[in-house]
Amino acid sequence: MDMIRDLKSCKIPEAEAKKRLKRRRLDLAGLQQTIKNEKLPVIVLVEGWGAAGKGGLIRSLIRELDPRFFTVRSPHVQTDRERRWPFLKRYFDLIPEKGKILFLDSSWMDGTMKEYLGGDISDKEYVRRIESAKVFERQLTNDGYLLVKLFLHISQKTQRERLHRLESDRDTSWRVSRNDWRQNRNYGKTLDAFDDYLEKTDFPWAPWKVIESEDGTQAQLEAADWLYEKIQEFIKRPVKCPLPVRSWDMGPEISLDSADLTLRIDKEEYEKQLDDCRDKLEELHNELYKKKIPVTIAYEGWDAAGKGGNIKRLTSALDPRGYEVHPIASPTPEELNRQYLWRFWSRLPKTGHIAVFDRSWYGRVMVERIEGFCTEEEWRRAYDEINEFERELTDSGMIVIKFWVHIDKDTQLARFRDRENTPEKRWKITKEDWRNREKWDQYETAVNEMLKKTNTKNAPWYILESVDKRYARIKAMKTVIKRIEDAM
Amino acid sequence: MDMIRDLKSCKIPEAEAKKRLKRRRLDLAGLQQTIKNEKLPVIVLVEGWGAAGKGGLIRSLIRELDPRFFTVRSPHVQTDRERRWPFLKRYFDLIPEKGKILFLDSSWMDGTMKEYLGGDISDKEYVRRIESAKVFERQLTNDGYLLVKLFLHISQKTQRERLHRLESDRDTSWRVSRNDWRQNRNYGKTLDAFDDYLEKTDFPWAPWKVIESEDGTQAQLEAADWLYEKIQEFIKRPVKCPLPVRSWDMGPEISLDSADLTLRIDKEEYEKQLDDCRDKLEELHNELYKKKIPVTIAYEGWDAAGKGGNIKRLTSALDPRGYEVHPIASPTPEELNRQYLWRFWSRLPKTGHIAVFDRSWYGRVMVERIEGFCTEEEWRRAYDEINEFERELTDSGMIVIKFWVHIDKDTQLARFRDRENTPEKRWKITKEDWRNREKWDQYETAVNEMLKKTNTKNAPWYILESVDKRYARIKAMKTVIKRIEDAM
Repeated sequence: MDMIRDLKSCKIPEAEAKKRLKRRRLDLAGLQQTIKNEKLPVIVLVEGWGAAGKGGLIRSLIRELDPRFFTVRSPHVQTDRERRWPFLKRYFDLIPEKGKILFLDSSWMDGTMKEYLGGDISDKEYVRRIESAKVFERQLTNDGYLLVKLFLHISQKTQRERLHRLESDRDTSWRVSRNDWRQNRNYGKTLDAFDDYLEKTDFPWAPWKVIESEDGTQAQLEAADWLYEKIQEFIKRPVKCPLPVRSWDMGPEISLDSADLTLRIDKEEYEKQLDDCRDKLEELHNELYKKKIPVTIAYEGWDAAGKGGNIKRLTSALDPRGYEVHPIASPTPEELNRQYLWRFWSRLPKTGHIAVFDRSWYGRVMVERIEGFCTEEEWRRAYDEINEFERELTDSGMIVIKFWVHIDKDTQLARFRDRENTPEKRWKITKEDWRNREKWDQYETAVNEMLKKTNTKNAPWYILESVDKRYARIKAMKTVIKRIEDAM
Repeated sequence: MDMIRDLKSCKIPEAEAKKRLKRRRLDLAGLQQTIKNEKLPVIVLVEGWGAAGKGGLIRSLIRELDPRFFTVRSPHVQTDRERRWPFLKRYFDLIPEKGKILFLDSSWMDGTMKEYLGGDISDKEYVRRIESAKVFERQLTNDGYLLVKLFLHISQKTQRERLHRLESDRDTSWRVSRNDWRQNRNYGKTLDAFDDYLEKTDFPWAPWKVIESEDGTQAQLEAADWLYEKIQEFIKRPVKCPLPVRSWDMGPEISLDSADLTLRIDKEEYEKQLDDCRDKLEELHNELYKKKIPVTIAYEGWDAAGKGGNIKRLTSALDPRGYEVHPIASPTPEELNRQYLWRFWSRLPKTGHIAVFDRSWYGRVMVERIEGFCTEEEWRRAYDEINEFERELTDSGMIVIKFWVHIDKDTQLARFRDRENTPEKRWKITKEDWRNREKWDQYETAVNEMLKKTNTKNAPWYILESVDKRYARIKAMKTVIKRIEDAM
């Protein structure tokens, strides 16, 4: 299938096109109210050849829109700093909140094609990028985002003429990049590559609309009509796409029952091992920095299991300039208004750095599931979404380590009582802890399901037996050491 | 006064120092609870010579702290991207929320000294940077932040030895920068410069503590003691510093009464002028981009005065990739937990870009004042804080334009009724609008006081007479055009 080569266009007389375009813009402004009131998030992706008129097309589409409820971004120049995170991060960071429209003047397609055609990424990496785009677009769609994807096409001759014209004017010459000329010189090869990308990312739930952009008004009208139609459809019936049947490369099956909570370490041995682990970790942190490997460590566990103290011992060995601890509380309104993984994407460590999450994205399949903060459909779908998310991280070279800090129900009771009876610890215990405790069995079911469905080889779970907190601390540190050493 | 040269140190026997340090760390961990519970924000600034042991000192201080409630940052490498904003932005962006401690390994002192000693900024700019630091530290202190400022001092000989030692080890050689060696070669001159900076920024409410750092443990103990003492003092009695008596360079006195609300433009003339203004603005936006001048436009005004439509006409002339509209609603919890200007610092435009604020930092002296969302002391102090804020922006080369969109009370009533009676407009009118209307006179007083106190020459107010919305739109566009032309 040649999406670009098969393109047909039917020209409407200029005056008529202008009139229709003007009306369509007003229609879009009307629809914007609905989008706002119904809290729909919309992403309009405008890709295409250099000088195909992407900027002008966006300007035309937004002409009548209320500027408080849309944003335009052109993220095409990737900075060195951005390269320090997984590919999708910069796009995830940009997603609009519900009720707003984001227009993207070139984006993940352009980012991929430039590097691929420039020879900066391998064929394998190209395939991976397409996989990433797929994951990204599907996760957003399933979360209720509407994705409208436009590709503006022009002929080699038109592009050449436009580039010359832009270059000859002092005011516009800076708009022409070397990449634009490279496209033009290698027009045929570039066209094939574009066609390949479009075909591979043309999903029923987020199809490409290829628009012939030889004439500005015609292209703008076609885009406005398409956008209007897509939004209309979406308001009537939001798009859902099935999760693909994925087979994840799973680690050994583990469950809470399999943990041996009698494991202990004596105090003297603990002090010795703690010192050894600290020295080793300090050294490895330095190595990580030099080799630019990022590490993400997620802590989950029962209340009073000793997460805080465990994290403290681990981080005490790290250079504070190279790690960050993110306590994850309930989401802010800003976060609630976006896909639920957004707030974790934005907190990912850059290369050479370590991020420790005190509670994590697994809240979706635990507290949100049990307290009904999300729908059943949402948490059921989350297992795969999380596996995909972690896969994006590990594919980019990140080490991902997940800890479940484990105790039994009696130990929790003893610790709760101790907290209540000790003035300095009383702040640590709240009514909510007691309420959660009543749901122990429900949580146990949820945790076991989570361990079963997300214990992937690339991002495995480790149960930390924490009836003896010292044992759990040493195990955590040794696990981190082992994982880093394996990755070196 | 030579803050560094006058330094005296009294050495405590090593074993005793270690013991005391260990105890002090536990004391600090205890205080952290209070900091958290009382929602105090603390910034610990660690400056000093290269290789003076800043990183090690911070690691020592945090050893027993709960990592969920502190962060460590070392913002010393300024990226090109960061240079596209006013100097203070990167530091304002970092400020911790209430209840948390931020440790900074080098910061605005280091940022300034490196550029000054490297000859990258002029004497005049150096003086301005000190002024910026003053504003920053005072504004934070008055908002309830505790600033603890440490400077670690070592001799030329010690520095040289440490740099050699670091360089000779493959694992640590990357820590030594050219700047470190430059300091060592020009030790005397650097010392004088440091002393000058310390002296000029040694305020009673945020004094410097110069610490001799020849011996790690001694320095760490001294820092821990000082930090402990400062936090203790602060918990008992938060520091307030008087606002300096500043004389701002004020523009002509204006008030709402002086506005002529009969000003009109007829429709035909409007269409013509709108087109002309659009063309002109489009051209100027391009120029701004090339000359890297940023523009901030703040819109304030009565409900139903026509702010939205005014912004829409203005932005319709701009390249959407180069501007952003920020609707300012009530602050999020994250924002409420920080100094009130933080959320505006974080939204400032970078060089060549335009930011339009639909409502702004002036909320402090209007809605927050009238509704009692801040104390009287807070809003009274805000006029100067806002003038200082805007001064930071304009000193950095930014154009700052402030619009009051003005109508009379009868016009507002007519528009409210029209909104209620027109189905498509009904979403625009809420009970809150009616409640605000009842407080018209209070708002009028507040607006007039605001115009009087913040109509500075560098960031002037413009009243947009908006009984005829068209007139107001053309005036806004012409004002923006004039201001940009003047700045070119």
